[in-house]
Amino acid sequence: MFKKILIANRGEIALRVIRTCKEMGIKTVAVYSKADADSLHVRFADEAVCIGPAPSNESYLKISNIIAAAEITNADAIHPGYGFLAENSKFSKICQEHDIKFIGASPGMIDKMGDKASARATMQSAGVPCIPGSDGLLEDFADCLKTAKAMGFPVMLKATAGGGGKGMRAVWKEEELQDAWDSARQEAGAAFGNNGMYLEKLIEEPRHIEIQIVGDSKGKACHLSERDCSIQRRHQKLTEETPSPFMTDELREKMGEAAIKAAEYIKYEGAGTVEFLVDKHRNFYFMEMNTRIQVEHPITEQVIDYDLIREQILVAANVPISGKNYLPKLHSIECRINAEDPYNGFRPSPGKITNLHAPGGHGVRIDTHVYSGYSIPPNYDSMIAKLITTAQTREEAINKMKRSLDEFIIEGVKTTIPFHRQLMDHPDYLAGNYTTKFMEDFEMDEKYKDQDL
Amino acid sequence: MFKKILIANRGEIALRVIRTCKEMGIKTVAVYSKADADSLHVRFADEAVCIGPAPSNESYLKISNIIAAAEITNADAIHPGYGFLAENSKFSKICQEHDIKFIGASPGMIDKMGDKASARATMQSAGVPCIPGSDGLLEDFADCLKTAKAMGFPVMLKATAGGGGKGMRAVWKEEELQDAWDSARQEAGAAFGNNGMYLEKLIEEPRHIEIQIVGDSKGKACHLSERDCSIQRRHQKLTEETPSPFMTDELREKMGEAAIKAAEYIKYEGAGTVEFLVDKHRNFYFMEMNTRIQVEHPITEQVIDYDLIREQILVAANVPISGKNYLPKLHSIECRINAEDPYNGFRPSPGKITNLHAPGGHGVRIDTHVYSGYSIPPNYDSMIAKLITTAQTREEAINKMKRSLDEFIIEGVKTTIPFHRQLMDHPDYLAGNYTTKFMEDFEMDEKYKDQDL
Repeated sequence: MFKKILIANRGEIALRVIRTCKEMGIKTVAVYSKADADSLHVRFADEAVCIGPAPSNESYLKISNIIAAAEITNADAIHPGYGFLAENSKFSKICQEHDIKFIGASPGMIDKMGDKASARATMQSAGVPCIPGSDGLLEDFADCLKTAKAMGFPVMLKATAGGGGKGMRAVWKEEELQDAWDSARQEAGAAFGNNGMYLEKLIEEPRHIEIQIVGDSKGKACHLSERDCSIQRRHQKLTEETPSPFMTDELREKMGEAAIKAAEYIKYEGAGTVEFLVDKHRNFYFMEMNTRIQVEHPITEQVIDYDLIREQILVAANVPISGKNYLPKLHSIECRINAEDPYNGFRPSPGKITNLHAPGGHGVRIDTHVYSGYSIPPNYDSMIAKLITTAQTREEAINKMKRSLDEFIIEGVKTTIPFHRQLMDHPDYLAGNYTTKFMEDFEMDEKYKDQDL
Repeated sequence: MFKKILIANRGEIALRVIRTCKEMGIKTVAVYSKADADSLHVRFADEAVCIGPAPSNESYLKISNIIAAAEITNADAIHPGYGFLAENSKFSKICQEHDIKFIGASPGMIDKMGDKASARATMQSAGVPCIPGSDGLLEDFADCLKTAKAMGFPVMLKATAGGGGKGMRAVWKEEELQDAWDSARQEAGAAFGNNGMYLEKLIEEPRHIEIQIVGDSKGKACHLSERDCSIQRRHQKLTEETPSPFMTDELREKMGEAAIKAAEYIKYEGAGTVEFLVDKHRNFYFMEMNTRIQVEHPITEQVIDYDLIREQILVAANVPISGKNYLPKLHSIECRINAEDPYNGFRPSPGKITNLHAPGGHGVRIDTHVYSGYSIPPNYDSMIAKLITTAQTREEAINKMKRSLDEFIIEGVKTTIPFHRQLMDHPDYLAGNYTTKFMEDFEMDEKYKDQDL
C-alpha cells in the first residue's frame, strides 16, 4: 500500500481524499496556491506545499511544481481529484515517468476517452449504444450540412475537445446551421485550441443518467448503479440523486451491462463514470466517460455503504475488486451549495463567510472545506459545500433535504441554498418529472430569498 | 397523524426530535428556560415558549408550565426526549388527562419499569434472566446480611429508586457491608426521597449490553440489535458501539428474544431499551428497562437505516410496526463530546464556545445544538455533541472516529475530545476487550492534550 499520497487539488475534494487516506493510515501531502493557504485541506494534511500564486495555470495546473512537491515530500502516489489535472494524459504520463503512481486512468485511456470523437468510435466498437451522429470529425461545413440533413433536424453540433457547454450548439432548422457552425468553431478554437466539430442527433426530453463503474488491473469491472444528474444549468450539474426517479430495474440492468461492457472493452482501471443520455422512451445513448472521481460520487457511497476514494486507492495499489454489482438500497440526493446569487443569474459571490452553521443529524452528510471566517477566493469554481441527504425513500430524502437546507446558515456571501430550497418544493421535481431542460424555464421565487421558511 | 408536537426537552435531543418532525411535516413547539434562549432547538422549532428560569425544577421539570405551553400552542402530542420528564409517570398521566398524546410509555408502564425492584419482579415472571438477588426490598440490615451471605460475596447493594450510580455500593467482604448499607441508604434518601435498598450478585468482568426494542399498540415487539455501552465513568456512558465486539450471532439471538419477551410481557408500546449485564461466560442478566429514547440511539439508526424518533411517533399514532427484527449491517460508534476537562477529573467546563468546526464527509454524523458563539449554561448536563461514525467494519469505524476527532475544533471550553482520541488508540479498546470497569484505571495521557495529532 502507498505510504504517502499527494493530493493535486484543492477545496472539498482535496479534503475528501485526505479523509480517506487518514482512515487508511496513509500520510498525505496537500498542495495549495497562495490564495488557498487558509483552506482546510491545507490544515488537515500531514504536510502542505505551496505551489504558486492563485491563477490555476501557475499552481494547480503547473505540472512541474506538483511533481517537485511530490518528490520533495517523497510521495509515492498522486490523487488528482476532479477537474484541474484529473484527465490530463500528459500529467498521468509524467507521473509514470517519475515513478509516482497516478491514482486515475493511464495516459492512453485518458486520451482515448478524453477526445469525444475517439471515445464515441471506441464505444461503437464495444457495442455500446451511441447517439446517432457523424462518423468522426466533420470535414467542413458542406459535410456538416449533408450529415445533418441525412440525420434529420434537430441536431447537436459539438466541439471534439468540448466541455462545460463550450463549442456546443443545438440546431433546430437547416437555416440556423451555418451560424451555429461558425460561432461554435470560433468558441472551441478560443477555448481549447482545437476547433474540430462533430454532429449528433439531438435527443428530445433527455435525461442525464450516469453509471458509476469500478475496474481493476485484472480487466474486471462492476457497476454501482446510476446517478440522475439531469438538473443542470448551462451543462453544470446542480443537484443529483440516486436512484433516478425515471429508472426501472430492467433499464438499470441494461445500462449497467453497457457501462461494464464499455469499461472492460478498454480495460479500464479505477473509478469511472459512463454518462448516458436517456430519452423519454428509455432508450439510452453513450455520451462520454469520465476517467476520474465525480463531484457527485457521495450519493452513490450513501446508498451502497461504499467508500469510492478508498476503492480508487485500492485499485491503484493493484488490489482486485470484488466484481459484484451494487444496487441502491436507499435514496440519496446531493445539492451543490455554490457561492453564487441565484437571484442574479447565478453570478459568483466570492468573499468572506462571516457565519457558518451546517445542518446535522440522521441521514445528513456534508462535504466542505469552508468554515466561519473563511474567505472564498474569486479564482476558482464557486462550489463551497455539498449537502447530501439519505433516507429509505425519495420522499423522505427530499423532506430531509428541505429541513437541512432550512438549517444551513451561511452568512457573508450569497449561496444557491434558496435555489435548492425552491427546487425541493417544485411539483415537477417532486414528481421526478424533469429533464436536462428543466432549468431553461426555471425562475427564482422571491419567497425563498430569506431562507427562513 | 399528529399536527403539532411539543418537545419537553432541550439541547441536542430537542433538536433531534424537531428534525424528524419537520421531515414528517409535523409542526413543532420548543419549550425553553431563560438560560436556553439562544439554543438551536429554539431557533429551529416552528414556535417556542419560555417556561421559566434556568433551574430545571422551575422549567423543564415544571409540569404545569409545560402543559400550559402545549395548550396555548394547541399541540396534540408531547415528546419528552430523555431525562427530565421522560420517565415521569405523573407527567405521562397528566398528558393523558389533558388529552395530549405522550410519546412514550403509559403511566403504569413507567411505574412498573421505573422502580427497579418491581421491574425485576416483573422480568422474573416474564422468564427473563435476572441477576441473582434479594427478593424485593430488604427489610433491614439483618435481612441484608443474611441475603448477602446466602448469595455469597461480592454483592451489589442498590437503591430501588437509584440512577446514575447514586445509592449504589459494591461490597466485596462481609465486614464492609454495614458501612455500605448506612452510606447508600443515606445517599438514596437524600437524592430520591426513598431509601429502599435491594441486593444483587455482583457480576465480575461485566459488559453493559442493551437491546433496542420497539413495541406497538397491538402488543407486538421487535428488536433492533444491541449497543455495547460498557465504556462508562461513574455509571455515565462515554462511548457506545454496535455491534458489540463481544457479541456472537447466537448471543444476539438469545438476548433479542429475551428483550422481545420482556417487551411483549408488559405490552410495551414505543421505543425502549432493555439493559443487560453480560458476564465473561456470555451469561446475560436483566438490569433495567428504559421506557424512552436513549442518548446513544443514533448508532442503531446508522447500522439499520431506521429513524427511531420517527418510529416513536408512528407507534404513538397507532401505526403498527413491521415486526421484523433488524440486524446490524454496518459498524457504528458514538462518542459523547462533553464540555468537561478530562485532565481534571472530567470537571464540567461551561462557557462560551469561541470557535466550532465539526468534522464531515463519508460516514460521519453529528448531533449537536451548539455553534460558534454559543454559551454553554452551567445548569444542565455537559454533553454538547454526539459524534457518530459508521463504516463496514469496526476497524474502519474506529479509524473514521480518529480522523473525525482530529478534525473537530471546539475552542473556548474544555471537552472530552482528547479522552475519546486516546480511547481510540487504547490497545484494549482496539481489541474490543473492555468491561464496565475499563475506566477505573484509565489515565489521561498528556500527549492528547493538544488534540493536534
